[in-house]
Amino acid sequence: MNREFFTARTVGEALTGFRPGRRTAVETVALAAALHRVPAADVRATSAMPGFPRSTVDGYAVRAADTYGASEGLPSYLDLAGSVRMGAAPTVAVSHGKCVAIPTGAVLPDGADAVVMVEHTAETMPGTIEVTRPVAPGAGLVRADEDAATGDVLVGAGRPLRAPQLGFLAAAGVTSVAVHARPRVAIVSTGDEVVPPQTRALAAGQVRDATASALAGLVRDAGGEPVLAGIVPDDRDALESTLRTALADADLVVVSAGSSVGARDETAGAVAALGEIWCHGLAVKPGKPTLLAECSGVPLVGLPGNPLSALVVFRLVGVPLVWRLAGAEQPPPEPTVRARLGRDLASATGRLDVVQVAVRRGSSPTPTAEPLFGPSALLSVLARADGYLVVPEPATGLDGGTEVEVILYR
Amino acid sequence: MNREFFTARTVGEALTGFRPGRRTAVETVALAAALHRVPAADVRATSAMPGFPRSTVDGYAVRAADTYGASEGLPSYLDLAGSVRMGAAPTVAVSHGKCVAIPTGAVLPDGADAVVMVEHTAETMPGTIEVTRPVAPGAGLVRADEDAATGDVLVGAGRPLRAPQLGFLAAAGVTSVAVHARPRVAIVSTGDEVVPPQTRALAAGQVRDATASALAGLVRDAGGEPVLAGIVPDDRDALESTLRTALADADLVVVSAGSSVGARDETAGAVAALGEIWCHGLAVKPGKPTLLAECSGVPLVGLPGNPLSALVVFRLVGVPLVWRLAGAEQPPPEPTVRARLGRDLASATGRLDVVQVAVRRGSSPTPTAEPLFGPSALLSVLARADGYLVVPEPATGLDGGTEVEVILYR
Repeated sequence: MNREFFTARTVGEALTGFRPGRRTAVETVALAAALHRVPAADVRATSAMPGFPRSTVDGYAVRAADTYGASEGLPSYLDLAGSVRMGAAPTVAVSHGKCVAIPTGAVLPDGADAVVMVEHTAETMPGTIEVTRPVAPGAGLVRADEDAATGDVLVGAGRPLRAPQLGFLAAAGVTSVAVHARPRVAIVSTGDEVVPPQTRALAAGQVRDATASALAGLVRDAGGEPVLAGIVPDDRDALESTLRTALADADLVVVSAGSSVGARDETAGAVAALGEIWCHGLAVKPGKPTLLAECSGVPLVGLPGNPLSALVVFRLVGVPLVWRLAGAEQPPPEPTVRARLGRDLASATGRLDVVQVAVRRGSSPTPTAEPLFGPSALLSVLARADGYLVVPEPATGLDGGTEVEVILYR
Repeated sequence: MNREFFTARTVGEALTGFRPGRRTAVETVALAAALHRVPAADVRATSAMPGFPRSTVDGYAVRAADTYGASEGLPSYLDLAGSVRMGAAPTVAVSHGKCVAIPTGAVLPDGADAVVMVEHTAETMPGTIEVTRPVAPGAGLVRADEDAATGDVLVGAGRPLRAPQLGFLAAAGVTSVAVHARPRVAIVSTGDEVVPPQTRALAAGQVRDATASALAGLVRDAGGEPVLAGIVPDDRDALESTLRTALADADLVVVSAGSSVGARDETAGAVAALGEIWCHGLAVKPGKPTLLAECSGVPLVGLPGNPLSALVVFRLVGVPLVWRLAGAEQPPPEPTVRARLGRDLASATGRLDVVQVAVRRGSSPTPTAEPLFGPSALLSVLARADGYLVVPEPATGLDGGTEVEVILYR
């Protein structure tokens, strides 16, 4: 692909414009395995919840009207007709002038329409309860369908399940959920100099593949299943053949390019032969030579050769893609922290600048974000960065001391 | 345990004061399985990285002194002595007045001390390179040990591994890491009314166990291994026996109490027989009847009966415990968002108030945090809450419109 045909885009354009329609298949998983998975359809209540009028306090089930006007000075006196046991049907009803002892969570007996808290009562004579405060109908209880009526949506489609929601589904008797399968993300590494991490002794000029392992971590964090598709030399035919195999078996293919200009060109050429290039060039630093394409319905992301740049781009445009493939409207929130910039940052207008930072917590409540500089080829930045900050396209830089939002690596 | 012996604490006191010394065993896992695991020891470089002086640009390896004074008007002319291939040892050296073509990432040839970017050169005659800008020694390259010298710490002990760090370790040839085992967290549910989630038809007064499933999700999010230890009726002997079994096999035992006062007392009594209670009562709403104990070296958390309260307390004091058991100095960052409070919130001084909220994004850049109220017994709040906010102990409340930090459920 010739440089003249580069179609550069902003990150914002890529996020809104490059939206392949592919979604993973739907599978049913046990509730215990459904954390952070994306429901394929709304999950609805098949019966009312809690299913019975339930006391929310320890006290006495009453007819509210029997307590009207009650006060410390002039209590209402009610006959204690019995008690309700936890987890059992009441064996006694409440009628005018009577009350029934009830613990938090138990079934409201027939005839009662409220529960008086034990704190507002006294049993001065055995079998007689003094009520010192009036209650309104409905006080001290939840209705049989107050949590959910039959048919109500318990959790909606398209948003990853959070831990508390698993509790709500369990309470509704939902023990399995139809969710989208984890997207299979094939990671293809390229570069004549790149060798597997398990290579013990490196020959001159060889480097171990850093990008694939880091990308695999980001894919897992995004709910995907990374598939390491191996290392391909800078050879157009070899790359095309590997991509063809990867595309047949994956929901998303990611190519981490060799670091030379030549290698990047091989990727664009190979991809052009397999599908349609949506953009080649992203207005972000680092990350400019990013390639986005769709090959027979499978999205493909070509990343810059530099591991740090590759990670920046994958975090910005790849992670939302993985979530989308799994049916999520938008990725779940990332950890962030407000910090003060430790020094001035220059930036070019019209380009998103992504700056890796270390976050230092001192005596001030607001931590400091220290930009990590040095040649972008340095891998040690990968280990030292707590997160990154984004200098938006319109800005020409940020002054030291500015409050910034740091997106933290988990 | 009598109420007179309650020893109530603040959440801050619990976090700093209740710090059991237990740590999980150390196991070695493959790098691909090490994401978010906690290294048990510093991981050090066994050789220098990248291991050779490496070009960071496409251009020409030179002796910097040969470029001094070069300009567009008066370039330095250097003889092209050859080129370096990616991933291979250079076969040619650089001597005075000579240069060698080199791609980004390749090995610097002997004799060179800098690389001139191709953009600052021209090959006007075959075999002769014009250099139009001077370079200093060290420009355009990284030193052989610039990423790490032998013995340098690549990643430190005690902090969960982040995705980018996996890349750095891979580059260093580290393919397995000694990490702390995932803490086994036994979750014991109690309550005469509580039945398993798979119970199809509920008898009067029965409720399905919501808390255990939600807690299991939080345990997984904290890198732990939840073990559902079953549902025990409100019976002291049964509870003591179940706790004894759970304590023998777990790194942390969590008891989600039945919702009645009686049940809570059973828990405290059973725990007092098995170990030492550190506190019974936490100055947090909801969550007051929390119990923290240590039984033969195994920490135990007794949670309030209400599922929502149980989750709040486990998130505040349980999650940091799980991370600590796995050797992490502090939990990794949680997702948060700045939002404007949708309405006034009252609070009592001297007590931490935890308020569940839904986060709504409108046209304003700052989203709104809408407090979710209603009886705390309502489980539907579990499904609707995007996160929670904490009204600190000294505050008496927050005005609507105040900017607050919402801790988001993942």
